[in-house]
Amino acid sequence: MVLQAAMRRTWSQIHKGFRYLMRPGKKTQPWSVKLKKYLNRRIPITEWMTHYTRDDAVGDLIAGITIALTIIPQSIAYAALAGLDPQYGLNSAFMGSFIYVFFGTIKQVVIGPSSLMALLTLQYTSHLNVDFVILLCFLVGVVELLMGIFNLGFLVSFISAPVVSGFTTATSLIVAISQFKGLFGMNFKSVGMFDTLLKIYDNISTIRTGDTILGVTCFVALLLMRKLKEVQISSDFKGHKVINNIFWFTSTGRNAIAVLITSFIALWYSNNGMKPPFITTKPIESGIPSIMIPPTSTQIGNQTYDLVEMVSELGTGYIIIPIVAILANIAIAKAFVNGTIDATQEMIALSLCNLVGSFFQSIPSCGAFSRSAVINASGVRTPLAGLYSAGLTLLALQFLSPYFYLIPRSTLSAVLISAVIFLVDWEIFEPLWKAGAKLELATVVATGFACLFIGVELGLLFGVIVGLVTLIFKWARPKIDVLRTKTSMGEYIIIRPDLGIFFPSVDYISTYIVKLADEDREEKKPILIDCRDIRDTDYTAAKSFMALTTMFEKRGQKLAFLDVRPQCQKMWKSAGIKNESFWLSENLTENLYGDDGIEDENATRMVEVVSQSGETEVMKNGGETNDHQMK
Amino acid sequence: MVLQAAMRRTWSQIHKGFRYLMRPGKKTQPWSVKLKKYLNRRIPITEWMTHYTRDDAVGDLIAGITIALTIIPQSIAYAALAGLDPQYGLNSAFMGSFIYVFFGTIKQVVIGPSSLMALLTLQYTSHLNVDFVILLCFLVGVVELLMGIFNLGFLVSFISAPVVSGFTTATSLIVAISQFKGLFGMNFKSVGMFDTLLKIYDNISTIRTGDTILGVTCFVALLLMRKLKEVQISSDFKGHKVINNIFWFTSTGRNAIAVLITSFIALWYSNNGMKPPFITTKPIESGIPSIMIPPTSTQIGNQTYDLVEMVSELGTGYIIIPIVAILANIAIAKAFVNGTIDATQEMIALSLCNLVGSFFQSIPSCGAFSRSAVINASGVRTPLAGLYSAGLTLLALQFLSPYFYLIPRSTLSAVLISAVIFLVDWEIFEPLWKAGAKLELATVVATGFACLFIGVELGLLFGVIVGLVTLIFKWARPKIDVLRTKTSMGEYIIIRPDLGIFFPSVDYISTYIVKLADEDREEKKPILIDCRDIRDTDYTAAKSFMALTTMFEKRGQKLAFLDVRPQCQKMWKSAGIKNESFWLSENLTENLYGDDGIEDENATRMVEVVSQSGETEVMKNGGETNDHQMK
Repeated sequence: MVLQAAMRRTWSQIHKGFRYLMRPGKKTQPWSVKLKKYLNRRIPITEWMTHYTRDDAVGDLIAGITIALTIIPQSIAYAALAGLDPQYGLNSAFMGSFIYVFFGTIKQVVIGPSSLMALLTLQYTSHLNVDFVILLCFLVGVVELLMGIFNLGFLVSFISAPVVSGFTTATSLIVAISQFKGLFGMNFKSVGMFDTLLKIYDNISTIRTGDTILGVTCFVALLLMRKLKEVQISSDFKGHKVINNIFWFTSTGRNAIAVLITSFIALWYSNNGMKPPFITTKPIESGIPSIMIPPTSTQIGNQTYDLVEMVSELGTGYIIIPIVAILANIAIAKAFVNGTIDATQEMIALSLCNLVGSFFQSIPSCGAFSRSAVINASGVRTPLAGLYSAGLTLLALQFLSPYFYLIPRSTLSAVLISAVIFLVDWEIFEPLWKAGAKLELATVVATGFACLFIGVELGLLFGVIVGLVTLIFKWARPKIDVLRTKTSMGEYIIIRPDLGIFFPSVDYISTYIVKLADEDREEKKPILIDCRDIRDTDYTAAKSFMALTTMFEKRGQKLAFLDVRPQCQKMWKSAGIKNESFWLSENLTENLYGDDGIEDENATRMVEVVSQSGETEVMKNGGETNDHQMK
Repeated sequence: MVLQAAMRRTWSQIHKGFRYLMRPGKKTQPWSVKLKKYLNRRIPITEWMTHYTRDDAVGDLIAGITIALTIIPQSIAYAALAGLDPQYGLNSAFMGSFIYVFFGTIKQVVIGPSSLMALLTLQYTSHLNVDFVILLCFLVGVVELLMGIFNLGFLVSFISAPVVSGFTTATSLIVAISQFKGLFGMNFKSVGMFDTLLKIYDNISTIRTGDTILGVTCFVALLLMRKLKEVQISSDFKGHKVINNIFWFTSTGRNAIAVLITSFIALWYSNNGMKPPFITTKPIESGIPSIMIPPTSTQIGNQTYDLVEMVSELGTGYIIIPIVAILANIAIAKAFVNGTIDATQEMIALSLCNLVGSFFQSIPSCGAFSRSAVINASGVRTPLAGLYSAGLTLLALQFLSPYFYLIPRSTLSAVLISAVIFLVDWEIFEPLWKAGAKLELATVVATGFACLFIGVELGLLFGVIVGLVTLIFKWARPKIDVLRTKTSMGEYIIIRPDLGIFFPSVDYISTYIVKLADEDREEKKPILIDCRDIRDTDYTAAKSFMALTTMFEKRGQKLAFLDVRPQCQKMWKSAGIKNESFWLSENLTENLYGDDGIEDENATRMVEVVSQSGETEVMKNGGETNDHQMK
């Protein structure tokens, strides 16, 4: 005991010292150093630029060009998915890549349009015009900035993996099905997945041969090119390295290749004075984006909306989209970084991409897993790679946009479908099944169906609520071990709950104890509540246990709390539980049998364990559970 | 080890045997015995009537008459509080007392109108007529029955003591303030507490002298009579017993006394051909209630409501009122019963009181603490006492109702105010303050103010949500102990989280670990996650820890999970974490230092504890935390 007390004191001092050591030189640092540190943290380019090498430059150049080949066709397709003209997607890609160079911390992250952002944007703005989308982009940036400043990034941790899985799968299915229309050259308006399926069925006769042939061919070609990356020419063959490189590049640039080739086909028809046998994109204004304040009023038909009306039309979009964007970005960051992530800085960077982007006619954007995989494989060294892809995107906007109208709609659909079908998360089912996690399996399925049936944002909310409710129920039903012990002096019962006792569980535990006591009303065996696993408690528990001790006093039956931590004792005593009710297991004999017990050395030596309830795995720890009877 | 394994097996068998023993003779019992048991459980009078004694009869008779003196004036006052004529309150008191005789299990519970029920009823029906109130009573009964059948009574355990306290206090204040109007003889319509206060201020000139004198006198007299119970005439004085009994009876029957005396004053004025100088109740139809199906349509002004419209007008009333009623009843039951409570049967009994009551023009009713205290002190023996109070209530309805119009309104207000002011829960603040439970103090205050400002039902919901959010946050931020240990062979770090790891906390823990590891990037000290307190986990944690192990593998730093329970191992392995990552503390040396460690007996003997973080009370358990370094 003396040794233990001494150790306690020593540790307490070590602890204090450690705390002091953890804040070294808080007062000694000059402000210039502090400012530099702050700048390095908030504008990371000021840090990594100081040790930028020639090797870095080469790596970033190659990665930048490669990523441009991915992001340009993606942006056009995602803009189309959101129901917008190609340049809005390209504007976002340009601004996202450009801003992230200065504020980003993770070289593998490439900000730009993504399927998730495009789909969510469509959900909130399908009945509105592009002014709403740009305003939404601005608001998303504002909310992300606030979340960054107030450190609210932890909110995404309340979205569990099964919920994310169900959400992503449902979203992918919705996007894929929405693109069937374009793939087959059909023309109709629809709302939601089931309406789309119904309209496809209704309009099955309007399928166009030209679009279908082109779309399906593109789709198959894209899947084959995707596989090309995995083909490895044997090193016996001369020039295998070059061929392997060509394969990898073809695979990576497959979207650009598909868009280019099919656009050339359209150009050929056009040059020969023919209308191509497939639907192409409509002509757009060309040129690089100009700086403009995000719209504060707009007109649809003959209805004018002011700023307040516009914001209210956007519903919960500017709350849900930032949360999903941050979730996606943090997930990507974690997949590629071997160390701590500065989540706050990442949120600020993402926020600025959207905030500044909205002044250049951008749509809500975030990182994309596919792009991160490509840029990582291309040997990226710093976020500077973004500068090259931003430059190339700007060139595309300036010089290629007059030709955008040539891009076949079914090609874009094929690009989108071939991208999203790989987001369907089949892999989650097997491990969950193996681990016997039925509740989590149900969560995946329920979230998925909720997203399909009531919309992705409500579905996501539903999944989150299901997850939180299961957490609350864990507090309501702690596991309770019961150990009936027979000693030479009598029998007693030990009850050991495994969690802190708070209001949802205290009734359950009290009822449990009273039932146990009622089972042997005559014998009035002492009941001991072993509190070693109880780290915290609340006033509701205190009041309920107070009532319990009063009841046992009236019954004339012993009830005591064993090894209660000081904090819990304080709380329980506040409701009136007396000092005498708190026992230490070291004094168990004395408390149970008084002086008789002390004189009889065998007083609490266990004669027989009458019964023990609890999980199998608890029984594994039987030795531990039992240790105060054994000594 | 062998001994342990043997003990484990033995326990497992004992456990199985115990389980079997717990369901004795499930197959052998004849159905007639089963039926009898079922009847005894669901219609408890069939059980206790079989051993009813003469002593029981005397006790119940006295208690029944006493309680009638309490419940009759209460019913008239609570009906007035809900904005209804006296007979609706009396109907409820009659039906509540009567039905509970057959179905109730707790002799101290007296079902009838209560301040809480009346106030909630008013909140939901203030703009409607009495047909809605009776329909509400029916629906409340239905919902309570469903909650009983589906065992949903546990839902009330999600309402914590601080929330109940804030709610009750706010409700009492609202009732008290709403009665100022009657006390001072004012006449205005108001909605909500603040509107009432404003209207009182605006109409201050309309205060009537007669009502004010009568009301305030009644109020003071009621308070004095209440105190009378505590007066004990010294036993030196002859006849002290009789006087003490008279005091007690006066105190208990104070409401009846006040109503009777002031009604006689009104009668005196009336008999002398004068209008009394105070407002009295309006004349009502007399007679006992007749059986009628609860209204399925009604008319207010020239608007007709069908059943669906009526139900929708009642809003969430038929959900909130049953929950509050069950909460109140269970709280009362717990205060008076020294053993298990059959919550299901109590819910069914309460439900039937409302359900059957709604066929006899009743308003929603439940138990009341004040009545239970009175009946308990009167020496009640069985629920049969209710029969006498039901009988007396019926007599009052039949013979006294022609005189109800004589009851002064300010007397009823005084009765109500003097009752509810004692419900204001000042006592919760001191223990919470002493125990340093700031969050719970804040919950009391926040719930109270929410009830005052946004209405009691929304306020209650607000309080419940606050409570649940704090529970969720407990999962998000487990306490983590860190122990850095220096041994003769090197240094290592043990991290010990104190709770099951689920999705809200896994990011926090991972980030914590990575930060610790980043602090000494060069030394790459092994990091061990001590999982002995982790009883359960989920797939999100599994995925996140998988990413963590991959990251540490890439860094070339050891990371292992210590003493993980089989169930958690299964889950974590399902996400791909390898067998090698799971260590047992018994093999710690071998795992850390290989064969060298085994050869060097001192390999893990602690040389120095470099630092330990964690709460003070954790440090108290230092010896335990440290035990695998010490052996």
